[in-house]
Amino acid sequence: MTIEAWTWPTPNGHKLHIALEEMELPYKVVPVNIGAGEQFNPDFLAINPNHRIPAIVDPDGPGRAPLRLFESGAILIYLAEKSGRLIPQDPAGRAACLQWLMFQMGGVGPMFGQFGHFTSYAAEKIPYAIERYGKEVRRLHGVLETRLSEAAFLAGEDYSIADIATFPWIRLPERRGIDLVEFPAVRRWHDAIAARPAVQRGLAVLSDRQRQGPMSDKERENLFGAMQFARR
Amino acid sequence: MTIEAWTWPTPNGHKLHIALEEMELPYKVVPVNIGAGEQFNPDFLAINPNHRIPAIVDPDGPGRAPLRLFESGAILIYLAEKSGRLIPQDPAGRAACLQWLMFQMGGVGPMFGQFGHFTSYAAEKIPYAIERYGKEVRRLHGVLETRLSEAAFLAGEDYSIADIATFPWIRLPERRGIDLVEFPAVRRWHDAIAARPAVQRGLAVLSDRQRQGPMSDKERENLFGAMQFARR
Repeated sequence: MTIEAWTWPTPNGHKLHIALEEMELPYKVVPVNIGAGEQFNPDFLAINPNHRIPAIVDPDGPGRAPLRLFESGAILIYLAEKSGRLIPQDPAGRAACLQWLMFQMGGVGPMFGQFGHFTSYAAEKIPYAIERYGKEVRRLHGVLETRLSEAAFLAGEDYSIADIATFPWIRLPERRGIDLVEFPAVRRWHDAIAARPAVQRGLAVLSDRQRQGPMSDKERENLFGAMQFARR
Repeated sequence: MTIEAWTWPTPNGHKLHIALEEMELPYKVVPVNIGAGEQFNPDFLAINPNHRIPAIVDPDGPGRAPLRLFESGAILIYLAEKSGRLIPQDPAGRAACLQWLMFQMGGVGPMFGQFGHFTSYAAEKIPYAIERYGKEVRRLHGVLETRLSEAAFLAGEDYSIADIATFPWIRLPERRGIDLVEFPAVRRWHDAIAARPAVQRGLAVLSDRQRQGPMSDKERENLFGAMQFARR
Protein backbone atom coordinates (compact mmCIF):
# COMPACT_ATOMS: atom_id res chain seq x y z
CA MET A 1 0.00 0.00 0.00
CA THR A 2 1.30 3.40 -0.98
CA ILE A 3 1.92 6.07 1.64
CA GLU A 4 0.82 9.57 0.67
CA ALA A 5 3.57 12.08 1.40
CA TRP A 6 2.05 15.58 1.62
CA THR A 7 5.20 17.57 1.27
CA TRP A 8 7.37 20.26 -0.26
CA PRO A 9 11.17 20.51 -0.78
CA THR A 10 12.14 22.20 2.49
CA PRO A 11 14.41 20.74 5.21
CA ASN A 12 11.41 19.24 7.00
CA GLY A 13 10.12 17.81 3.73
CA HIS A 14 13.54 16.37 2.92
CA LYS A 15 13.53 14.41 6.19
CA LEU A 16 10.46 12.55 4.99
CA HIS A 17 11.69 12.01 1.42
CA ILE A 18 15.02 10.63 2.65
CA ALA A 19 13.38 8.36 5.23
CA LEU A 20 10.96 6.90 2.67
CA GLU A 21 13.82 6.25 0.25
CA GLU A 22 16.07 4.74 2.92
CA MET A 23 13.31 2.47 4.20
CA GLU A 24 12.22 1.52 0.67
CA LEU A 25 8.59 2.19 1.49
CA PRO A 26 6.26 2.73 -1.47
CA TYR A 27 4.99 6.30 -1.53
CA LYS A 28 3.47 8.92 -3.73
CA VAL A 29 4.16 12.61 -3.45
CA VAL A 30 1.27 15.01 -2.94
CA PRO A 31 2.85 18.44 -3.44
CA VAL A 32 1.70 21.16 -1.02
CA ASN A 33 2.99 24.41 -2.49
CA ILE A 34 3.44 26.47 0.65
CA GLY A 35 4.47 29.59 -1.29
CA ALA A 36 1.13 29.40 -3.11
CA GLY A 37 -0.76 28.88 0.17
CA GLU A 38 -1.85 25.28 -0.45
CA GLN A 39 -1.19 24.45 3.21
CA PHE A 40 -4.40 26.32 3.99
CA ASN A 41 -6.54 24.14 1.71
CA PRO A 42 -9.21 22.24 3.64
CA ASP A 43 -7.93 18.85 2.49
CA PHE A 44 -4.55 19.58 4.05
CA LEU A 45 -5.96 21.20 7.20
CA ALA A 46 -7.96 18.00 7.72
CA ILE A 47 -4.63 16.18 8.08
CA ASN A 48 -2.72 18.91 9.90
CA PRO A 49 -4.55 21.73 11.69
CA ASN A 50 -1.09 23.29 12.22
CA HIS A 51 -0.78 23.70 8.39
CA ARG A 52 2.88 22.70 8.22
CA ILE A 53 4.43 20.17 5.88
CA PRO A 54 5.21 17.31 5.91
CA ALA A 55 2.27 15.07 6.75
CA ILE A 56 1.45 11.54 5.68
CA VAL A 57 -1.58 9.39 5.13
CA ASP A 58 -0.79 5.70 5.49
CA PRO A 59 -3.74 3.70 4.10
CA ASP A 60 -2.26 0.63 5.78
CA GLY A 61 -1.97 2.09 9.28
CA PRO A 62 -2.37 0.31 12.62
CA GLY A 63 -5.20 -2.23 12.52
CA ARG A 64 -5.29 -1.82 8.71
CA ALA A 65 -7.03 1.52 9.22
CA PRO A 66 -5.74 4.67 7.48
CA LEU A 67 -3.46 6.79 9.66
CA ARG A 68 -2.98 10.52 9.22
CA LEU A 69 0.12 11.93 10.84
CA PHE A 70 1.94 15.25 10.97
CA GLU A 71 5.13 16.55 12.66
CA SER A 72 8.24 15.30 10.88
CA GLY A 73 9.73 13.85 14.08
CA ALA A 74 6.63 11.76 14.81
CA ILE A 75 6.48 10.60 11.20
CA LEU A 76 10.12 9.46 11.34
CA ILE A 77 9.46 7.41 14.49
CA TYR A 78 6.30 5.92 12.98
CA LEU A 79 8.00 4.92 9.73
CA ALA A 80 11.07 3.55 11.55
CA GLU A 81 8.89 1.39 13.78
CA LYS A 82 6.71 0.31 10.84
CA SER A 83 9.71 -0.72 8.73
CA GLY A 84 11.88 -1.89 11.64
CA ARG A 85 14.72 0.19 10.20
CA LEU A 86 16.84 3.17 11.16
CA ILE A 87 16.02 3.13 14.85
CA PRO A 88 18.27 1.13 17.20
CA GLN A 89 16.66 -2.00 18.58
CA ASP A 90 18.53 -1.93 21.90
CA PRO A 91 16.81 0.32 24.44
CA ALA A 92 19.86 2.47 25.26
CA GLY A 93 20.56 3.12 21.58
CA ARG A 94 16.90 3.83 21.03
CA ALA A 95 16.89 6.39 23.86
CA ALA A 96 19.98 8.09 22.39
CA CYS A 97 18.33 8.16 18.96
CA LEU A 98 15.19 9.81 20.33
CA GLN A 99 17.30 12.25 22.37
CA TRP A 100 19.12 13.52 19.28
CA LEU A 101 15.92 13.50 17.26
CA MET A 102 14.42 15.79 19.91
CA PHE A 103 17.54 17.96 19.84
CA GLN A 104 16.87 18.48 16.14
CA MET A 105 13.13 19.03 16.59
CA GLY A 106 13.40 21.45 19.50
CA GLY A 107 16.76 23.08 18.82
CA VAL A 108 18.27 22.83 15.36
CA GLY A 109 15.01 23.13 13.40
CA PRO A 110 13.35 26.03 15.22
CA MET A 111 16.54 28.02 15.79
CA PHE A 112 17.92 27.60 12.27
CA GLY A 113 14.43 28.50 11.08
CA GLN A 114 14.47 31.76 13.06
CA PHE A 115 17.89 32.57 11.61
CA GLY A 116 16.50 32.05 8.12
CA HIS A 117 13.49 34.20 8.93
CA PHE A 118 15.52 37.16 10.13
CA THR A 119 18.24 36.92 7.48
CA SER A 120 16.20 36.07 4.39
CA TYR A 121 12.53 36.70 4.88
CA ALA A 122 11.84 39.49 7.34
CA ALA A 123 11.25 42.77 5.52
CA GLU A 124 13.11 44.60 8.29
CA LYS A 125 16.76 43.81 9.07
CA ILE A 126 17.07 43.55 12.84
CA PRO A 127 20.70 43.26 13.98
CA TYR A 128 19.82 41.96 17.47
CA ALA A 129 17.80 39.05 16.09
CA ILE A 130 20.28 38.23 13.33
CA GLU A 131 23.10 38.12 15.88
CA ARG A 132 21.08 36.12 18.40
CA TYR A 133 20.13 33.36 15.98
CA GLY A 134 23.46 33.43 14.16
CA LYS A 135 25.22 32.68 17.44
CA GLU A 136 22.74 29.98 18.29
CA VAL A 137 23.21 28.30 14.89
CA ARG A 138 26.96 28.27 15.49
CA ARG A 139 26.53 27.01 19.06
CA LEU A 140 24.33 24.13 17.91
CA HIS A 141 26.91 23.15 15.30
CA GLY A 142 29.38 23.02 18.21
CA VAL A 143 27.13 20.64 20.17
CA LEU A 144 26.89 18.39 17.11
CA GLU A 145 30.68 18.57 16.73
CA THR A 146 31.09 17.37 20.34
CA ARG A 147 28.75 14.46 19.76
CA LEU A 148 30.13 13.48 16.36
CA SER A 149 33.69 13.58 17.71
CA GLU A 150 32.78 10.69 20.01
CA ALA A 151 30.39 8.70 17.81
CA ALA A 152 30.09 7.96 14.10
CA PHE A 153 26.43 8.97 14.02
CA LEU A 154 24.14 10.82 16.40
CA ALA A 155 22.59 7.73 17.99
CA GLY A 156 25.97 5.91 18.13
CA GLU A 157 27.55 3.47 15.73
CA ASP A 158 24.67 3.32 13.29
CA TYR A 159 22.97 5.77 10.97
CA SER A 160 19.41 6.45 12.18
CA ILE A 161 16.39 8.73 11.93
CA ALA A 162 18.24 11.20 14.20
CA ASP A 163 20.74 11.73 11.39
CA ILE A 164 18.01 11.88 8.75
CA ALA A 165 16.26 14.62 10.76
CA THR A 166 19.42 16.69 11.19
CA PHE A 167 21.18 16.32 7.85
CA PRO A 168 18.80 18.55 5.80
CA TRP A 169 19.57 21.43 8.21
CA ILE A 170 23.35 20.98 7.94
CA ARG A 171 23.68 20.79 4.18
CA LEU A 172 24.15 24.14 2.41
CA PRO A 173 25.91 25.56 5.50
CA GLU A 174 26.90 28.72 3.61
CA ARG A 175 23.25 29.76 3.88
CA ARG A 176 23.80 30.03 7.61
CA GLY A 177 27.22 31.63 7.59
CA ILE A 178 28.83 28.33 8.59
CA ASP A 179 32.00 26.83 7.15
CA LEU A 180 32.21 23.15 8.02
CA VAL A 181 36.01 23.40 8.03
CA GLU A 182 35.50 24.63 11.60
CA PHE A 183 33.46 21.54 12.45
CA PRO A 184 35.46 18.60 11.06
CA ALA A 185 33.44 15.85 12.72
CA VAL A 186 30.20 17.37 11.43
CA ARG A 187 31.76 17.58 7.97
CA ARG A 188 32.84 13.93 8.06
CA TRP A 189 29.30 12.97 9.09
CA HIS A 190 27.68 15.24 6.49
CA ASP A 191 29.81 13.85 3.68
CA ALA A 192 29.06 10.24 4.64
CA ILE A 193 25.33 10.93 4.57
CA ALA A 194 25.41 13.04 1.41
CA ALA A 195 27.06 10.13 -0.42
CA ARG A 196 24.18 7.73 0.27
CA PRO A 197 22.15 6.99 -2.87
CA ALA A 198 18.85 7.02 -0.94
CA VAL A 199 19.70 10.48 0.40
CA GLN A 200 20.38 11.71 -3.12
CA ARG A 201 17.07 10.28 -4.31
CA GLY A 202 15.30 11.92 -1.36
CA LEU A 203 16.82 15.31 -2.10
CA ALA A 204 15.71 15.02 -5.72
CA VAL A 205 12.02 14.77 -4.76
CA LEU A 206 10.25 17.93 -6.02
CA SER A 207 13.65 19.54 -6.55
CA ASP A 208 12.32 21.28 -9.65
CA ARG A 209 9.83 23.08 -7.41
CA GLN A 210 12.43 24.46 -5.01
CA ARG A 211 12.00 28.18 -4.59
CA GLN A 212 14.74 30.42 -5.91
CA GLY A 213 15.48 34.10 -5.98
CA PRO A 214 13.79 36.84 -4.00
CA MET A 215 10.46 36.11 -2.37
CA SER A 216 7.38 37.63 -3.96
CA ASP A 217 4.86 39.55 -1.86
CA LYS A 218 2.36 36.74 -2.40
CA GLU A 219 4.83 34.13 -1.11
CA ARG A 220 5.72 36.32 1.86
CA GLU A 221 2.04 36.70 2.70
CA ASN A 222 1.41 32.95 2.50
CA LEU A 223 4.45 32.05 4.55
CA PHE A 224 4.48 34.82 7.13
CA GLY A 225 1.43 37.03 6.74
CA ALA A 226 -2.00 37.38 8.26
CA MET A 227 -3.19 34.17 6.58
CA GLN A 228 -1.06 32.26 9.10
CA PHE A 229 -2.87 33.76 12.00
CA ALA A 230 -6.51 33.60 10.89
CA ARG A 231 -8.58 31.52 13.30
CA ARG A 232 -9.93 28.44 11.56
CA MET B 1 16.61 2.52 42.26
CA THR B 2 16.37 6.27 42.38
CA ILE B 3 16.44 8.36 39.19
CA GLU B 4 18.50 11.54 39.39
CA ALA B 5 16.55 14.49 38.02
CA TRP B 6 18.96 17.27 37.07
CA THR B 7 16.52 20.10 36.85
CA TRP B 8 15.24 23.57 37.65
CA PRO B 9 11.69 24.97 37.98
CA THR B 10 11.11 26.09 34.37
CA PRO B 11 8.44 24.75 31.99
CA ASN B 12 10.84 22.10 30.68
CA GLY B 13 11.79 21.15 34.24
CA HIS B 14 8.12 20.94 35.22
CA LYS B 15 7.48 18.37 32.50
CA LEU B 16 9.93 16.03 34.17
CA HIS B 17 8.72 16.70 37.72
CA ILE B 18 5.10 16.07 36.74
CA ALA B 19 5.95 12.90 34.81
CA LEU B 20 7.95 11.44 37.70
CA GLU B 21 5.11 12.19 40.11
CA GLU B 22 2.44 10.80 37.78
CA MET B 23 4.41 7.62 37.15
CA GLU B 24 5.30 7.21 40.83
CA LEU B 25 8.94 6.64 39.98
CA PRO B 26 11.42 7.16 42.83
CA TYR B 27 13.64 10.17 42.12
CA LYS B 28 15.90 12.67 43.70
CA VAL B 29 16.28 16.24 42.60
CA VAL B 30 19.72 17.56 41.64
CA PRO B 31 19.17 21.31 41.30
CA VAL B 32 20.95 22.98 38.37
CA ASN B 33 20.69 26.71 39.03
CA ILE B 34 20.71 28.05 35.49
CA GLY B 35 20.67 31.68 36.64
CA ALA B 36 23.89 30.98 38.56
CA GLY B 37 25.45 29.23 35.54
CA GLU B 38 25.49 25.71 37.00
CA GLN B 39 24.51 24.28 33.60
CA PHE B 40 28.10 24.96 32.54
CA ASN B 41 29.61 22.85 35.32
CA PRO B 42 31.58 19.88 33.94
CA ASP B 43 29.42 17.35 35.78
CA PHE B 44 26.34 18.63 34.00
CA LEU B 45 28.04 19.03 30.63
CA ALA B 46 29.05 15.36 30.90
CA ILE B 47 25.34 14.53 30.87
CA ASN B 48 24.21 17.17 28.39
CA PRO B 49 26.69 18.89 26.06
CA ASN B 50 23.80 21.19 25.10
CA HIS B 51 23.73 22.52 28.72
CA ARG B 52 19.95 22.64 28.98
CA ILE B 53 17.83 21.26 31.79
CA PRO B 54 16.28 18.79 32.39
CA ALA B 55 18.45 15.71 32.17
CA ILE B 56 18.27 12.41 34.03
CA VAL B 57 20.59 9.69 35.17
CA ASP B 58 18.80 6.38 35.62
CA PRO B 59 21.10 4.01 37.52
CA ASP B 60 18.76 1.18 36.52
CA GLY B 61 18.78 1.83 32.79
CA PRO B 62 18.57 -0.70 29.95
CA GLY B 63 20.58 -3.83 30.72
CA ARG B 64 20.92 -2.62 34.34
CA ALA B 65 23.51 -0.09 33.14
CA PRO B 66 23.20 3.59 34.07
CA LEU B 67 21.53 5.72 31.41
CA ARG B 68 22.12 9.43 30.95
CA LEU B 69 19.50 11.24 28.95
CA PHE B 70 18.67 14.81 28.01
CA GLU B 71 15.92 16.53 25.98
CA SER B 72 12.66 16.65 27.89
CA GLY B 73 10.71 14.99 25.07
CA ALA B 74 13.07 12.02 24.92
CA ILE B 75 13.00 11.71 28.71
CA LEU B 76 9.19 11.62 28.70
CA ILE B 77 9.14 8.82 26.12
CA TYR B 78 11.80 6.89 28.03
CA LEU B 79 9.99 7.17 31.37
CA ALA B 80 6.62 6.33 29.81
CA GLU B 81 8.02 3.20 28.20
CA LYS B 82 9.89 2.27 31.37
CA SER B 83 6.82 2.61 33.56
CA GLY B 84 4.31 1.47 30.92
CA ARG B 85 2.23 4.53 31.76
CA LEU B 86 0.99 7.69 30.07
CA ILE B 87 1.63 6.59 26.52
CA PRO B 88 -1.16 4.82 24.61
CA GLN B 89 -0.52 1.13 24.03
CA ASP B 90 -2.41 0.97 20.73
CA PRO B 91 -0.20 2.02 17.80
CA ALA B 92 -2.57 4.68 16.41
CA GLY B 93 -2.92 6.32 19.83
CA ARG B 94 0.80 6.08 20.33
CA ALA B 95 1.42 7.83 16.98
CA ALA B 96 -1.01 10.61 17.93
CA CYS B 97 0.70 10.99 21.30
CA LEU B 98 4.13 11.35 19.70
CA GLN B 99 2.72 13.74 17.10
CA TRP B 100 1.41 16.15 19.77
CA LEU B 101 4.57 15.69 21.84
CA MET B 102 6.57 16.80 18.79
CA PHE B 103 4.17 19.71 18.27
CA GLN B 104 5.08 20.84 21.78
CA MET B 105 8.81 20.22 21.35
CA GLY B 106 9.15 21.89 17.96
CA GLY B 107 6.40 24.51 18.13
CA VAL B 108 4.99 25.48 21.51
CA GLY B 109 8.26 25.29 23.45
CA PRO B 110 10.61 27.12 21.07
CA MET B 111 8.08 29.74 19.96
CA PHE B 112 6.76 30.52 23.45
CA GLY B 113 10.39 30.67 24.52
CA GLN B 114 11.20 33.27 21.85
CA PHE B 115 8.20 35.30 22.97
CA GLY B 116 9.51 35.22 26.53
CA HIS B 117 12.96 36.20 25.36
CA PHE B 118 11.80 39.27 23.45
CA THR B 119 9.22 40.41 25.99
CA SER B 120 11.04 39.73 29.26
CA TYR B 121 14.73 39.18 28.78
CA ALA B 122 16.09 41.04 25.75
CA ALA B 123 17.64 44.35 26.81
CA GLU B 124 16.26 45.96 23.63
CA LYS B 125 12.52 46.05 22.92
CA ILE B 126 12.03 45.02 19.30
CA PRO B 127 8.44 45.51 18.14
CA TYR B 128 8.80 43.28 15.07
CA ALA B 129 9.96 40.30 17.14
CA ILE B 130 7.44 40.86 19.93
CA GLU B 131 4.63 40.98 17.39
CA ARG B 132 5.92 37.97 15.45
CA TYR B 133 6.13 35.68 18.46
CA GLY B 134 3.01 37.09 20.10
CA LYS B 135 1.00 36.15 17.03
CA GLU B 136 2.61 32.73 16.89
CA VAL B 137 1.79 32.07 20.57
CA ARG B 138 -1.84 32.95 19.85
CA ARG B 139 -1.90 30.85 16.68
CA LEU B 140 -0.55 27.81 18.52
CA HIS B 141 -3.22 28.20 21.20
CA GLY B 142 -5.70 28.12 18.32
CA VAL B 143 -4.28 24.83 17.03
CA LEU B 144 -4.58 23.35 20.52
CA GLU B 145 -8.15 24.66 20.72
CA THR B 146 -9.01 22.85 17.47
CA ARG B 147 -7.56 19.61 18.78
CA LEU B 148 -9.04 19.85 22.27
CA SER B 149 -12.48 20.63 20.79
CA GLU B 150 -12.49 17.16 19.24
CA ALA B 151 -10.68 15.13 21.91
CA ALA B 152 -10.47 15.19 25.70
CA PHE B 153 -6.67 15.14 25.67
CA LEU B 154 -4.04 15.70 23.02
CA ALA B 155 -3.49 12.01 22.22
CA GLY B 156 -7.20 11.22 22.37
CA GLU B 157 -9.34 9.92 25.23
CA ASP B 158 -6.54 9.55 27.72
CA TYR B 159 -4.15 11.88 29.48
CA SER B 160 -0.59 11.24 28.26
CA ILE B 161 2.95 12.57 28.08
CA ALA B 162 1.80 14.88 25.25
CA ASP B 163 -0.36 16.71 27.80
CA ILE B 164 2.39 16.68 30.42
CA ALA B 165 4.76 18.30 27.90
CA THR B 166 2.30 21.00 26.90
CA PHE B 167 0.62 21.92 30.19
CA PRO B 168 3.58 23.79 31.75
CA TRP B 169 3.57 26.15 28.75
CA ILE B 170 -0.17 26.86 28.98
CA ARG B 171 -0.39 27.63 32.68
CA LEU B 172 0.14 31.27 33.64
CA PRO B 173 -1.26 32.39 30.24
CA GLU B 174 -1.25 36.05 31.33
CA ARG B 175 2.52 35.95 30.94
CA ARG B 176 1.97 35.50 27.24
CA GLY B 177 -0.89 37.95 26.80
CA ILE B 178 -3.38 35.10 26.51
CA ASP B 179 -6.80 34.92 28.14
CA LEU B 180 -8.06 31.34 28.12
CA VAL B 181 -11.64 32.63 27.91
CA GLU B 182 -10.93 32.85 24.18
CA PHE B 183 -9.86 29.18 24.13
CA PRO B 184 -12.55 27.32 26.08
CA ALA B 185 -11.45 23.81 25.16
CA VAL B 186 -7.87 24.63 26.17
CA ARG B 187 -9.20 26.04 29.43
CA ARG B 188 -11.26 22.91 30.14
CA TRP B 189 -8.16 20.78 29.47
CA HIS B 190 -5.88 23.05 31.53
CA ASP B 191 -8.23 22.98 34.51
CA ALA B 192 -8.54 19.19 34.43
CA ILE B 193 -4.77 18.79 34.46
CA ALA B 194 -4.14 21.49 37.06
CA ALA B 195 -6.50 19.65 39.45
CA ARG B 196 -4.42 16.45 39.43
CA PRO B 197 -2.58 15.92 42.71
CA ALA B 198 0.54 14.59 40.93
CA VAL B 199 0.64 17.74 38.82
CA GLN B 200 0.46 19.88 41.93
CA ARG B 201 3.27 17.90 43.53
CA GLY B 202 5.33 18.25 40.35
CA LEU B 203 4.85 22.01 40.24
CA ALA B 204 5.95 22.25 43.88
CA VAL B 205 9.40 20.77 43.12
CA LEU B 206 12.01 23.49 43.70
CA SER B 207 9.21 26.07 43.73
CA ASP B 208 11.09 28.01 46.41
CA ARG B 209 13.91 28.48 43.89
CA GLN B 210 11.71 29.96 41.17
CA ARG B 211 13.15 33.21 39.92
CA GLN B 212 11.17 36.35 40.59
CA GLY B 213 11.47 40.03 39.80
CA PRO B 214 13.80 41.66 37.32
CA MET B 215 16.74 39.68 36.00
CA SER B 216 20.18 40.59 37.31
CA ASP B 217 23.06 41.20 34.92
CA LYS B 218 24.69 38.01 36.14
CA GLU B 219 21.57 35.97 35.41
CA ARG B 220 21.21 37.58 32.00
CA GLU B 221 24.82 36.74 31.21
CA ASN B 222 24.41 33.11 32.28
CA LEU B 223 21.15 32.65 30.41
CA PHE B 224 21.82 34.66 27.26
CA GLY B 225 25.39 35.97 27.24
CA ALA B 226 28.73 34.98 25.78
CA MET B 227 29.03 32.03 28.19
CA GLN B 228 26.37 30.28 26.10
CA PHE B 229 28.43 30.52 23.00
CA ALA B 230 31.92 29.60 24.22
CA ARG B 231 33.24 26.53 22.41
CA ARG B 232 33.78 23.68 24.86
